[in-house]
Amino acid sequence: MNNQMQVGVVYYPEQWDAARWEADIKQMAEAGVTVVRLAEFAWCRMEPAPGQFTFEWLDEVIDLFAQHKIAVILCTPTNTPPRWLTDQHPDVLPIQANGMTTHAGVRGHRCFNSASLNYYASVIIHQMAMRYGTHPAVIGWQLDNEYWMLDCHCPSCNTLFRQWLIQKYETVSRLNEEWGTIVWSGEYSDWQQVTVPYGGSRFQNPSYLLDFARFQWDMMELFQREQINHIRQYSKHQFITHNFHTYPQRVNLHQLGRELDVASFDYYPNTDPQKQATGPYSGALALDVTRGIKRKNFYIMEQLSGSPGCWFPSWRAPYPGFIRAFAWQAIAKGADKVLHFRWRSATVGAEQFWQGLIDPSNVPGRRLREFSQFAQEVNRLSAKLIDTTFKHQVAIVMSHENMEAMRIQHQSDYYEHIKDYHRTLTKLGIGCDVIEAGVSLEQYKLVIVPSLYITHEETANRLEQFAQAGGTVVLTFRSGVKLVNNQHVETMLPGYLQKSSGIYVEEYDAIGQSTQTIRDEDGETYSSSIWCDIVSLQGAEAIAWYEDEFYSGTPAVTCNQVGKGKVYYVATHPEEAYLRKLMSRLAMEQHINYNANLPEGVQVIERFGKSSRYLFILNLSRASVTLPLDCAGYSLLREETNEQQLELAPYELDIVEIPLSVG
Amino acid sequence: MNNQMQVGVVYYPEQWDAARWEADIKQMAEAGVTVVRLAEFAWCRMEPAPGQFTFEWLDEVIDLFAQHKIAVILCTPTNTPPRWLTDQHPDVLPIQANGMTTHAGVRGHRCFNSASLNYYASVIIHQMAMRYGTHPAVIGWQLDNEYWMLDCHCPSCNTLFRQWLIQKYETVSRLNEEWGTIVWSGEYSDWQQVTVPYGGSRFQNPSYLLDFARFQWDMMELFQREQINHIRQYSKHQFITHNFHTYPQRVNLHQLGRELDVASFDYYPNTDPQKQATGPYSGALALDVTRGIKRKNFYIMEQLSGSPGCWFPSWRAPYPGFIRAFAWQAIAKGADKVLHFRWRSATVGAEQFWQGLIDPSNVPGRRLREFSQFAQEVNRLSAKLIDTTFKHQVAIVMSHENMEAMRIQHQSDYYEHIKDYHRTLTKLGIGCDVIEAGVSLEQYKLVIVPSLYITHEETANRLEQFAQAGGTVVLTFRSGVKLVNNQHVETMLPGYLQKSSGIYVEEYDAIGQSTQTIRDEDGETYSSSIWCDIVSLQGAEAIAWYEDEFYSGTPAVTCNQVGKGKVYYVATHPEEAYLRKLMSRLAMEQHINYNANLPEGVQVIERFGKSSRYLFILNLSRASVTLPLDCAGYSLLREETNEQQLELAPYELDIVEIPLSVG
Amino acid sequence: MNNQMQVGVVYYPEQWDAARWEADIKQMAEAGVTVVRLAEFAWCRMEPAPGQFTFEWLDEVIDLFAQHKIAVILCTPTNTPPRWLTDQHPDVLPIQANGMTTHAGVRGHRCFNSASLNYYASVIIHQMAMRYGTHPAVIGWQLDNEYWMLDCHCPSCNTLFRQWLIQKYETVSRLNEEWGTIVWSGEYSDWQQVTVPYGGSRFQNPSYLLDFARFQWDMMELFQREQINHIRQYSKHQFITHNFHTYPQRVNLHQLGRELDVASFDYYPNTDPQKQATGPYSGALALDVTRGIKRKNFYIMEQLSGSPGCWFPSWRAPYPGFIRAFAWQAIAKGADKVLHFRWRSATVGAEQFWQGLIDPSNVPGRRLREFSQFAQEVNRLSAKLIDTTFKHQVAIVMSHENMEAMRIQHQSDYYEHIKDYHRTLTKLGIGCDVIEAGVSLEQYKLVIVPSLYITHEETANRLEQFAQAGGTVVLTFRSGVKLVNNQHVETMLPGYLQKSSGIYVEEYDAIGQSTQTIRDEDGETYSSSIWCDIVSLQGAEAIAWYEDEFYSGTPAVTCNQVGKGKVYYVATHPEEAYLRKLMSRLAMEQHINYNANLPEGVQVIERFGKSSRYLFILNLSRASVTLPLDCAGYSLLREETNEQQLELAPYELDIVEIPLSVG
Repeated sequence: MNNQMQVGVVYYPEQWDAARWEADIKQMAEAGVTVVRLAEFAWCRMEPAPGQFTFEWLDEVIDLFAQHKIAVILCTPTNTPPRWLTDQHPDVLPIQANGMTTHAGVRGHRCFNSASLNYYASVIIHQMAMRYGTHPAVIGWQLDNEYWMLDCHCPSCNTLFRQWLIQKYETVSRLNEEWGTIVWSGEYSDWQQVTVPYGGSRFQNPSYLLDFARFQWDMMELFQREQINHIRQYSKHQFITHNFHTYPQRVNLHQLGRELDVASFDYYPNTDPQKQATGPYSGALALDVTRGIKRKNFYIMEQLSGSPGCWFPSWRAPYPGFIRAFAWQAIAKGADKVLHFRWRSATVGAEQFWQGLIDPSNVPGRRLREFSQFAQEVNRLSAKLIDTTFKHQVAIVMSHENMEAMRIQHQSDYYEHIKDYHRTLTKLGIGCDVIEAGVSLEQYKLVIVPSLYITHEETANRLEQFAQAGGTVVLTFRSGVKLVNNQHVETMLPGYLQKSSGIYVEEYDAIGQSTQTIRDEDGETYSSSIWCDIVSLQGAEAIAWYEDEFYSGTPAVTCNQVGKGKVYYVATHPEEAYLRKLMSRLAMEQHINYNANLPEGVQVIERFGKSSRYLFILNLSRASVTLPLDCAGYSLLREETNEQQLELAPYELDIVEIPLSVG
Repeated sequence: MNNQMQVGVVYYPEQWDAARWEADIKQMAEAGVTVVRLAEFAWCRMEPAPGQFTFEWLDEVIDLFAQHKIAVILCTPTNTPPRWLTDQHPDVLPIQANGMTTHAGVRGHRCFNSASLNYYASVIIHQMAMRYGTHPAVIGWQLDNEYWMLDCHCPSCNTLFRQWLIQKYETVSRLNEEWGTIVWSGEYSDWQQVTVPYGGSRFQNPSYLLDFARFQWDMMELFQREQINHIRQYSKHQFITHNFHTYPQRVNLHQLGRELDVASFDYYPNTDPQKQATGPYSGALALDVTRGIKRKNFYIMEQLSGSPGCWFPSWRAPYPGFIRAFAWQAIAKGADKVLHFRWRSATVGAEQFWQGLIDPSNVPGRRLREFSQFAQEVNRLSAKLIDTTFKHQVAIVMSHENMEAMRIQHQSDYYEHIKDYHRTLTKLGIGCDVIEAGVSLEQYKLVIVPSLYITHEETANRLEQFAQAGGTVVLTFRSGVKLVNNQHVETMLPGYLQKSSGIYVEEYDAIGQSTQTIRDEDGETYSSSIWCDIVSLQGAEAIAWYEDEFYSGTPAVTCNQVGKGKVYYVATHPEEAYLRKLMSRLAMEQHINYNANLPEGVQVIERFGKSSRYLFILNLSRASVTLPLDCAGYSLLREETNEQQLELAPYELDIVEIPLSVG
Repeated sequence: MNNQMQVGVVYYPEQWDAARWEADIKQMAEAGVTVVRLAEFAWCRMEPAPGQFTFEWLDEVIDLFAQHKIAVILCTPTNTPPRWLTDQHPDVLPIQANGMTTHAGVRGHRCFNSASLNYYASVIIHQMAMRYGTHPAVIGWQLDNEYWMLDCHCPSCNTLFRQWLIQKYETVSRLNEEWGTIVWSGEYSDWQQVTVPYGGSRFQNPSYLLDFARFQWDMMELFQREQINHIRQYSKHQFITHNFHTYPQRVNLHQLGRELDVASFDYYPNTDPQKQATGPYSGALALDVTRGIKRKNFYIMEQLSGSPGCWFPSWRAPYPGFIRAFAWQAIAKGADKVLHFRWRSATVGAEQFWQGLIDPSNVPGRRLREFSQFAQEVNRLSAKLIDTTFKHQVAIVMSHENMEAMRIQHQSDYYEHIKDYHRTLTKLGIGCDVIEAGVSLEQYKLVIVPSLYITHEETANRLEQFAQAGGTVVLTFRSGVKLVNNQHVETMLPGYLQKSSGIYVEEYDAIGQSTQTIRDEDGETYSSSIWCDIVSLQGAEAIAWYEDEFYSGTPAVTCNQVGKGKVYYVATHPEEAYLRKLMSRLAMEQHINYNANLPEGVQVIERFGKSSRYLFILNLSRASVTLPLDCAGYSLLREETNEQQLELAPYELDIVEIPLSVG
């Protein structure tokens, strides 16, 4: 069952009268559902009092799903400790930097480091795994729900942070050295003086703050590992995942992804017409980021089913086709399971206006119809698509360490910077991977490394070797600035990347929202913003120059020949038009296919099977578009041989199967 | 004395040297003052230490007023507990959701549920009532000052809330069911786990939050009832009121008004020239809301006397005529007493720049002159106007339950929505009442019910019966959404109003500040915003349609014949021009008089006496206006027979007496 | 050594490897450094544990500086208590109004009133003074760092505030009277009820809040005096200063300046191109304010060396010449020592991106070159410039009492108001002093007194006498409003200034950001904003009138002949063009030189020596300018006789020496 693509829903049986379960499940099956997620927030129904377990209802629900051939994913319920737990053991509740407690009631009210939370979590997970670890209908597990950084300041976090530091640095004097605490007379003379950053000032020592983030990452990893260990005691063949959400995330996706079998994402593309131009590209990046967590296909644990209208002013109603189109985008980008959130909108609680596929009236409408079309299509094509993967020649490096360090000392928006490069590639039809810093680059021809702010020497070496061997590297401003301990390097920037970039950063001008003009070799001009490194050439040659300010005429973009390859340095943040020209140039240089004529809003993505490749062509816009299709193939959706010209209505898509030529 | 209209001031004798009292009072009398409010914040002077009472100064002041034939309204002083009380019994102080105490010093520093506050309040009120309950100069009482929702989280509130819930729901399992606590594992297993909503998150369970508001309403009612009981022990013939303020108010005006003899309002029309276009209409609504509290005439306890300049950036100076014109507006709308706040501006404390009628210099100026003109006019006309009332054929329904529920889960601004309909009516010269949901509709021809979000079945039935009998009902989007427990209905919207509206809401699009175009039967187009219900006709017929988005062509406004009457459903929030056209149509259909030619800023209000009606024609703008007057009458202000054409200078008004034709 | 102008840097040897010290110091000497500031935040290195002193490293550093003939300024380290102190004595930490503790880590974490802080400060300062009080290389001391108002609510502050009040008012009843606590029943019946203003509401009694500020000023003075006393026990000839910063400051500069030998300022002119038009004028005011603290020349303890980029989004890179030009501006305005902050940018801690003169790479660049040019120039001209001072005929009165009182009850921005008058003068080339209210005015011809909100009777008399004797006084709106206890006067405004101004303020209109038109005698019109006093003439004559609103045609600016002089009253806040015209008129009337043709951005400042005057002509803009020079002199920077026409490149300047004519 697991070697099929699956489409399904999130269902909270505990929120509905048991009398409705069977009819609901029958209706799901008819709509094409083959997988369901259960029990996410159901702790209080599985263990209504400490040590008292009431799984019978869940047994019944799972059996009903099994009867309808719907596979089940279960969740560990730790995101929402029950009232008896927070009441009897208030140490479960996170404490904010200002000393305020995060009270129960709005979920996520649990400190990962709370001893009580960990004890009671181990008990319930042990029970769940024992009961369902070999259940034939249960195919996998989701741990907790949507991790986010708590920045908890509870006594337990305080103690564990100190222990983590003792283990890392051994002596107080080493700690003082690595953090540079001498500034502002901050040297510790005793471990007891070291605490979590009470008060929450963003002007605390940045080395300290970065370590506080790393400590949290380690503790989340530990929290997760414990859950995995409990499940694995009883469950050998079920997958374990977690549903990451809302990027950029301060949690370290790569670190947390390491011990998961598969990464998942909760995908809520923005329905606002004003986000029409950017939303589909942000979504494309989020999906690539998710695939990059484990560098393989992933799942969607929650996919948009309507307007998610409870945490903010209500969202706009999704345009006809929107729900289906973005579900297909998820699959195009590597999702092998897609679960829509949720079957029926809640009638109770704070998420009442977060629309499911069916309204509380239980009258099927447009949303369910769209879902059902999608589900039937996937079920039909599952066998063809299930083992297909990606062969990208381009990668963007994304480092959580850098994102966090640049959050602590804000210079530019790290993730927005990545977004701009990624959107440019997507608009050119160039597929790319988003990968962790420091990993192997073997498969790529072009690697884009926005603001490698903290540069590990090994990473610098790896990039240089990649260029030496013929690859193209793109570096940008704010690279090589920091050592691993978040101290400033004592060389000229870009520090460890001096040699490969062939430039020195003599000065910089943080222009922010002001703009600078740059001129390229063709004499064309573009605007840029955010930052201007003022560089001197140390072997590289300039390919664009500043036009304004006292550094007018100095290089804005440089290129350095390194062995058989090249290292580009983009010293500023140019507008998209320039990035498009630059990326086209690099693609040409590296013989990477790109499409200069993709209409706005259209995304083209390739998944590769053994003997065919599958071209997903998505119109993620409200306009009808026509585009030429220069390859012969078979439209899997239309079930006909492909025309040379493809017309796509708003939010319409096609999937074209093209045989791989031999060799 | 009480069967006169009265005009007066608020006076704080305790803030001035006793040597000035007599001169002040003499000057008031000369200015036309016939009523004064005293002792509002004077607790520390009436009881400087626990159980030590010093009323002699107040006796003296009241006697002085009596000598000048000025009636006295006394206040219970509970809004400002004295220092000895907050110092010895800090449980008096409210505690915010984040755990912070509301400290003494800026008034309102008292939790309605504090045992200490209630005990010491009972002592001082008992003393006051005993002393002044039969005093011939004292005509009435104001309880406390300007109630507002405290959302207090003190231990006393916590305990009482739990008890209130136990009484309401009896068992924890019933509570869990009514609140739908199963969401996010929030089920209570013991009453001790139930608390006030510590932390103050707006994403707590909405059923819980609505009950927390209802609890507060009940406790405020109890707090008020205790005060009334103390006074009534000694005072049989003095009225008891409270000065409500600043609408929309989260306090439940209707519930609190129930046990008052008369409702009062503190009326501070906005002096900003930029509010010229909207301020007079917001004011008109506030006065109608106040009259609606008890569905009868009311008092103004505080009326604008100058620029209220201490709580915000200073207000603008009132334009010449502004003070008098808005005081007359209050009377036109049903105020039978108007007290200006305050006699002389304070020289001490935080309200120093809140201007009274006279400056600290005690040199009379423009403001006092305007007041005095107003006072003399009212005194002259009192006998004519005193028992006049209103005969409105139109009502707008306003529900505090709905306002609070829509505050908890924001979808549109409930009060702004009411404002738009009310302003449209006012600009058409159509007087209306603003009434509580669920009350008798007998006297009306047209009832407008904006967003009846929580719909009680009885209310739905009453509206249907009203239409059956020939009335016109206007419903708008977000009606019938919720059950009384703030859970979502399980039928298609508008829930209980399906039958009377003759439509289904298939979907909705929360467009917020974006705009949608609608087209009516005449082909004219209008913009709308905030919300678009997408409806299907189930018996009703469409009278306007959407022009944009994927639901272009579907009904935006519908009309359903119900018995002899009609139910309109306005599925979106149209601009005023459309509302004007719609209201005109409905007025015509129901033979309600309206005036399509009222100049901007002019309001016409009718009070009815036994043999005459009194037309108040107010120019609440900075422009001179001319308007035809098609009825023969006698101008009470100009003391001459009325011309056919009325010219009004800026902020000028006229009152025309028109004999009632027999039958 | 002290009778030289000195230029230098701030250096933190403790932040760098000792092995680098000598090379750093040698490089400083070569760059022209003659003075250095040390030990500001070095408490933890001077006293790593209570009572354990480790000054050897500092001895070594000072000796190295001495060897290179660089004078040393030492700092008392109280701004940053070490970890052992805050850990063992947490009463050192300030507590905010909301009860939150200000934690260690971001400096300034010390309550001036903490007993522990005061005790441990006395110990370390005693040790430092004993060791370095007669050290020949140490020329002076800086106390603490950049005082700011803490508004601390710790138990110690609470107790001391009460004691301060007891001493000031003796009885509770006197306190009640002076504060007017009767408002809102706030009368105290026992001293124990009096506390610091917990909760921090800005609507607390304004008399109370002003006293809380005065209390803090007195306690800061006491804190400072203790430090001075400790130093003076051992140090007779070293100067004592403090580095004030970032005006407007709520700390009372004049009060704190009283016991200092010399005032200092930390000068960071804004590098943003968008601040080009206003920044240099704000800077000029700040320098004049600093010179006004002790009415004599001052020092710069921290001068901009690059982009200060850590507390905010990074600043822009300083334009070429910017660093030097603004350092010269400081000297032109009276700085006799200028220390740049800092030698080398930090590689550790939160101020990493606050640029020093050299980057962490230690590669000298543009910034060091500019500094070095400046240093060499100053060193060359030191003998000429050292004893030169100012002879201004114009003064602006600035009162901290008024600034604080207008902050408590906001009506207009007191400091912005001063800025506007000061900028107008500066653009006309009119030098002025910024002086405390109430001091002697003997030397001046024209005194501008913006919003003398609290008016002491003596100050009013002094101003009148000044006018009587032939001087010109300019008063503006919001003058004479308050008594010293922050109660409102009981006369017509401008209170004590009625007689000298010859007007009454009948009303006012707080127009805020709206605009009013005024017309002057020539029929020219100007806009004004913020405030419009509506005045009646009581002897004065009008010279400009309002054009809008109901008070159109009434006086907006008046002039009253008082003895041989005149008192002007500017009843509104006119745009700069009007102020320019008015100031030109007043200058003409008083035969004060002014220059109507100064290009935008150019400032001309005169320092007077015994036999010459020195004209500093600074182009503080990005444009090249040409200006005529009608006086013969010698250019000290170009070392040539001055041309009649001066051309200045962007951020270029000249200093012209002009012999004083005899008599």
